Amino acid sequence: MRWVLPDHIQDVLPAEAARLETLRRRLLDAFRAHGYQLVAPPLLEFIDSLTTGASEDLRLRTFTLVDQLSGRSMGVRADTTTQVARIDAHLLNRRGVARLCYCGSVLHTLPSTLTATREPLQLGAELYGHAGLEADIEVIRLLAEVLSLAELPARRIDIGHVGLFHALASRAGMVPGREEELFGLLQAKDVPTLREFLAGVAEPARSGLLALTELYGDAEVLDEAARRLPDEADIRAALADLRGVAGALADLPISFDLGDLRGYHYHSGVVFAAYGSGSPGALALGGRYDRVGQAFGRGRPATGFSLDLRELALRLPGQAAAGGILAPLDGDPALATEVAALRAQGEIVLSALPGHEGTWQEAGCDRRLIKRDGRWVVDVLQGE
Amino acid sequence: MRWVLPDHIQDVLPAEAARLETLRRRLLDAFRAHGYQLVAPPLLEFIDSLTTGASEDLRLRTFTLVDQLSGRSMGVRADTTTQVARIDAHLLNRRGVARLCYCGSVLHTLPSTLTATREPLQLGAELYGHAGLEADIEVIRLLAEVLSLAELPARRIDIGHVGLFHALASRAGMVPGREEELFGLLQAKDVPTLREFLAGVAEPARSGLLALTELYGDAEVLDEAARRLPDEADIRAALADLRGVAGALADLPISFDLGDLRGYHYHSGVVFAAYGSGSPGALALGGRYDRVGQAFGRGRPATGFSLDLRELALRLPGQAAAGGILAPLDGDPALATEVAALRAQGEIVLSALPGHEGTWQEAGCDRRLIKRDGRWVVDVLQGE
Repeated sequence: MRWVLPDHIQDVLPAEAARLETLRRRLLDAFRAHGYQLVAPPLLEFIDSLTTGASEDLRLRTFTLVDQLSGRSMGVRADTTTQVARIDAHLLNRRGVARLCYCGSVLHTLPSTLTATREPLQLGAELYGHAGLEADIEVIRLLAEVLSLAELPARRIDIGHVGLFHALASRAGMVPGREEELFGLLQAKDVPTLREFLAGVAEPARSGLLALTELYGDAEVLDEAARRLPDEADIRAALADLRGVAGALADLPISFDLGDLRGYHYHSGVVFAAYGSGSPGALALGGRYDRVGQAFGRGRPATGFSLDLRELALRLPGQAAAGGILAPLDGDPALATEVAALRAQGEIVLSALPGHEGTWQEAGCDRRLIKRDGRWVVDVLQGE
Repeated sequence: MRWVLPDHIQDVLPAEAARLETLRRRLLDAFRAHGYQLVAPPLLEFIDSLTTGASEDLRLRTFTLVDQLSGRSMGVRADTTTQVARIDAHLLNRRGVARLCYCGSVLHTLPSTLTATREPLQLGAELYGHAGLEADIEVIRLLAEVLSLAELPARRIDIGHVGLFHALASRAGMVPGREEELFGLLQAKDVPTLREFLAGVAEPARSGLLALTELYGDAEVLDEAARRLPDEADIRAALADLRGVAGALADLPISFDLGDLRGYHYHSGVVFAAYGSGSPGALALGGRYDRVGQAFGRGRPATGFSLDLRELALRLPGQAAAGGILAPLDGDPALATEVAALRAQGEIVLSALPGHEGTWQEAGCDRRLIKRDGRWVVDVLQGE
């Protein structure tokens, strides 16, 4: 049974690989056109670099290995975002804005859902060095464009703001360990436990934190939040950010989810999740994470998003496979010229290796090159 | 020092990533045009699948991990070839020829040379289901084409035949463990130790094995081999294969190295190594490995090659980076139309986020969009 793969690990076979490659090029080309430069951080790093700013959940999902050269612990990346933040902070050293993008596999020790792969192909775009809403707006618009290019236009983009949580947690006087626990309860949307947890917390922080779990929906949610959450500077600023972003993106299907913290590990400001039709899960997650660069010696404002390209490719409408042209194995230079010309036009031309008559349709051929009146011409490949 | 990477592990920064992406597309397009279908086996597999047919050296260079779902040992692939053989044997189930290709990272516990990366980006093409020399000839010709496309035409392609070694080892009456040891000595070209090792071995096997280390150079080597090696069927057949391949590839810079076994782990027939100018190391290795599929339940003849795309990209002549166009952040619909048109033409257009005047040349901009006489036009971006 040497051909059995571990659970939640899959091969990508030709039809899916072709779809993935099509999408990969289309999306990376879009990133390039918007000025996002491609980078490729390594699969392996020392574990403390890799899990900088990561949640406990992400740490647990990171495979660890021993470096035989140094004896130190390394990890296989479970997420690329902090690696790209490291590149911005330490290697590019730009004064102004840096726009970066990436596309590569990540590995998870455990799948994130019952059906998830443990090897997502993470594709993302990140914008560094700009703290203003203009940057948040740019990346959300870019995400919407990318999903349209993937023929999966966003049906809904939920936006939220991690600053609301932090303001309320701070008001509630949470010590760091407790704050993380509270974050986990909100992430899990575990309202009963949340109620218990908040039993001893003073008002208005208690009601505010509970209200977060109910504040989702269209623009009226922001008015309701202004009424139900404490009237203080951080909260007013966060709500103003959300109004600003939504106002600039009025042409997109923006809605709000102020208590949604799922998947936001290191985020600090406006966060967002895009949903398509036909599936309840988010297609892409993103947001602002201004504090990650500090660990790499240079705190730079940052925002961006990432998605699993395999998930997108699965939903890309099936394309009819391009049919190949079978070319006989014949030393005629005129044949070689014709084959080269067909390939340059984007055609697939396969050499008919001897002894395999009758198997070429299985290999995808629907036409063949034959010599007619002294010239090589393409003809239909009949049932062999 | 959280930004320090492990030794022999590197980031790919924008200039190199752009070169890599250019090469990746160019080479995968060439594979596609020749009928090689893209597949992407996983980074992780159970260790016994992954190291099937692999040499001791490759096993030692494979990172192992415990699967938290099954408790079994997994490995991170150090080589993709056997994975693709598994796909051919077990998943595609073709009667005839299957042509497959791939491009993905592999990881090594230890670098293969003092300057090697531990994360090569392995790109390769494999041809299954054809035992004839036509298949060997096709893949060597494809490799030569691929190197030309990478602007690094092969200066020399050495061919050899693992069958010569096996015939001589069998004649020498080597038991399996000893045969592996002998293989290692020949791989290492360690002639003094080889002489000692062969001291008790009977003629003509002893002289034949020693002769292998001296049989390299142009076509005369085959005549010399016919004189110096025992006159027996397997050896005659191997030499005839080499003559056949070289004859069909007379337009390529073919030479011979009958004792070169470096890098050939699971190979069984004609093997080859391509060299470029400017560096002593091989750019690509390949050859026939007809026995690997058996472990996956279906022995199919196979031949192919692989190379490290990062090594190729390093040597690709530097391209002038495409200059970007800076677009003001202006809600004018006419500007949006112009930006979309420029991007569709392949131009890079960056939004000028506010507060970053004077930094846009650093981000690669050499032009900007300005409004002149009521129309948006591209102008030179002066030193800001």
